[in-house]
Amino acid sequence: MREIMIDTNEPYRVLIGGGLLRDAGALIQSLERKPGAVAVITDSHVGPLYAERMEESLKDFRHYVYTVDAGEENKTPETLIAILRSMAQHEITRADLVVALGGGVVGDMAGFASAVYQRGMRFIQCPTTLLSAVDASVGGKTAVDLPEGKNLIGAFHQPAMVLCDTDTFQTLDPARIADGAAEIVKHAAIADEKLFDVMAAQDWQSDIDAIVARNVEIKRSFVLQDEHDLGQRQMLNFGHTIGHAVEAWSRFRLSHGQAVAVGMVMETRAARRLGMTELAEDALIGILEAKGLPTAVDATAEDILEFATRDKKRQSGAVTVVVPDRIGHARLERLDMGRFRQYVEAGLP
Amino acid sequence: MREIMIDTNEPYRVLIGGGLLRDAGALIQSLERKPGAVAVITDSHVGPLYAERMEESLKDFRHYVYTVDAGEENKTPETLIAILRSMAQHEITRADLVVALGGGVVGDMAGFASAVYQRGMRFIQCPTTLLSAVDASVGGKTAVDLPEGKNLIGAFHQPAMVLCDTDTFQTLDPARIADGAAEIVKHAAIADEKLFDVMAAQDWQSDIDAIVARNVEIKRSFVLQDEHDLGQRQMLNFGHTIGHAVEAWSRFRLSHGQAVAVGMVMETRAARRLGMTELAEDALIGILEAKGLPTAVDATAEDILEFATRDKKRQSGAVTVVVPDRIGHARLERLDMGRFRQYVEAGLP
Repeated sequence: MREIMIDTNEPYRVLIGGGLLRDAGALIQSLERKPGAVAVITDSHVGPLYAERMEESLKDFRHYVYTVDAGEENKTPETLIAILRSMAQHEITRADLVVALGGGVVGDMAGFASAVYQRGMRFIQCPTTLLSAVDASVGGKTAVDLPEGKNLIGAFHQPAMVLCDTDTFQTLDPARIADGAAEIVKHAAIADEKLFDVMAAQDWQSDIDAIVARNVEIKRSFVLQDEHDLGQRQMLNFGHTIGHAVEAWSRFRLSHGQAVAVGMVMETRAARRLGMTELAEDALIGILEAKGLPTAVDATAEDILEFATRDKKRQSGAVTVVVPDRIGHARLERLDMGRFRQYVEAGLP
Repeated sequence: MREIMIDTNEPYRVLIGGGLLRDAGALIQSLERKPGAVAVITDSHVGPLYAERMEESLKDFRHYVYTVDAGEENKTPETLIAILRSMAQHEITRADLVVALGGGVVGDMAGFASAVYQRGMRFIQCPTTLLSAVDASVGGKTAVDLPEGKNLIGAFHQPAMVLCDTDTFQTLDPARIADGAAEIVKHAAIADEKLFDVMAAQDWQSDIDAIVARNVEIKRSFVLQDEHDLGQRQMLNFGHTIGHAVEAWSRFRLSHGQAVAVGMVMETRAARRLGMTELAEDALIGILEAKGLPTAVDATAEDILEFATRDKKRQSGAVTVVVPDRIGHARLERLDMGRFRQYVEAGLP
């Protein structure tokens, strides 16, 4: 088992290892303030696989399991309210604990529910996808979507602990593994050349615990510099400025990881063609294709601009983009809207 | 105009005076980070009276007004979502500003909306009732109700400024003035004997600015000691432990202020009869009746216990009650459930 401390205002531990779900109850017992009851929030994919294991582990706590329909399309205020009402009906108090058992969607919703239930209570993340393990389990971002846009309402709310049982990745299909790989390649591209080399290898999954741990460390280093996402943390948006737009343009037929893969390639190409970097996009294309990820779409510049400028990160007519100087290092640049248009056009294949 | 600084983590000013709504635009201009746009949230009672004045003051900002149906029964997740969607439709960003123009219900909902929109943005409280001016505008508590209970979801979110235009109280009917008086008497009872004497006078409304300012100071002193409501701040629950139960028992036919008036009398009587204080409830009864507030209801001990033990502040089988030692001073005591039952029974007339 690996353990990483995240030193936010209220520090917490990220534990990574096979079989950790079985230890959930004992680990909750180890919290400084023990909860009286536990609300386990999961979804219709993950619940049938792991809820029983979780309940067995929680047998010494009063607890219940609430299962939401799986899928990003259910990450809505309505599902959030249903979760919150279930908590009230089970007489959960703010001294109790929420456990988010699932991928990013469950983590986002259960985390947000715990941020606002009785004005805030603790929650534990149990990511069951590679993507949520390397991405969503550090950073404290929780949210649900509105019809007007993704993640439009939410809270910054740090978990009390993250339990990453890497055995759960064994039930993921290859496309979901690839989604995780896209975010890992992103972390590698902006911060860790060695990790990039590891990901280039055929057998990159052979020590998945180590890879998850390294990604948590990378994400931590950016998040701790900037807990509220105003500066350095924007570096983590590499591939996302265009990727989010591509994801929305595709009406979410592309997964987040697939869209980020396309976004990284386009953003690197754009920066190179505008003379902002000497890094070529070839290495990225090679590694992403080997993981089964797309690296181009047939969206036009207009398509991308339309969705990119809707994004909530746009402020006062300028867009911050992440420019990879070389594999393992990146910087931020602010582009006015005219320049951003050139950038998007330059990113097309 | 009176000005009080609230030194929370991000300090803000409470401004109190007649005519302040007309200065809203200029005061927003004085913020360190100027918003690009302003979302004014008001309700169907207050909007027709004051929205035009607010809009005139905001003419140099891109802004819009969103009007919710007035009344506590509309303080729901559905109304909250409607507010948030209106913000997205008007392309509000987290660099912008929400203005809550109304009483406690509007303040709670608009404040909560600003706490979660794009994971948090600034808001300004413009309380238009005496109750919200002396109670809701300091403390940072925001919330909406669930069918399962009041204020079950919310956030601690401090305003960027509070503009209390005391001219707006002139359009309140006497029952709403009395609601405010109940909370003022509460503050006086736990912290300020002189204020209690002021409230005992017929002409207590003659310097309403001074009264609001004093109440803001009292509330500040408790809140700053305990921003997250775990200790000293519970002193502000005087009259509320039984009051909330009475309010719920009445199915909210009693207003919050009326229920708190009843609660203060019952809690004082209970403490006296159980030998926890020598203070008699007569002075409270006299002052509250003079304000047109009720001081007794025909609920039974069982009625009150049923609703009081549902309250979210109950934890681990004990209840914290506020015991007034004398007018102007109080202390907290924790009662186990058996003792709390005796307390409720002793509180009956």
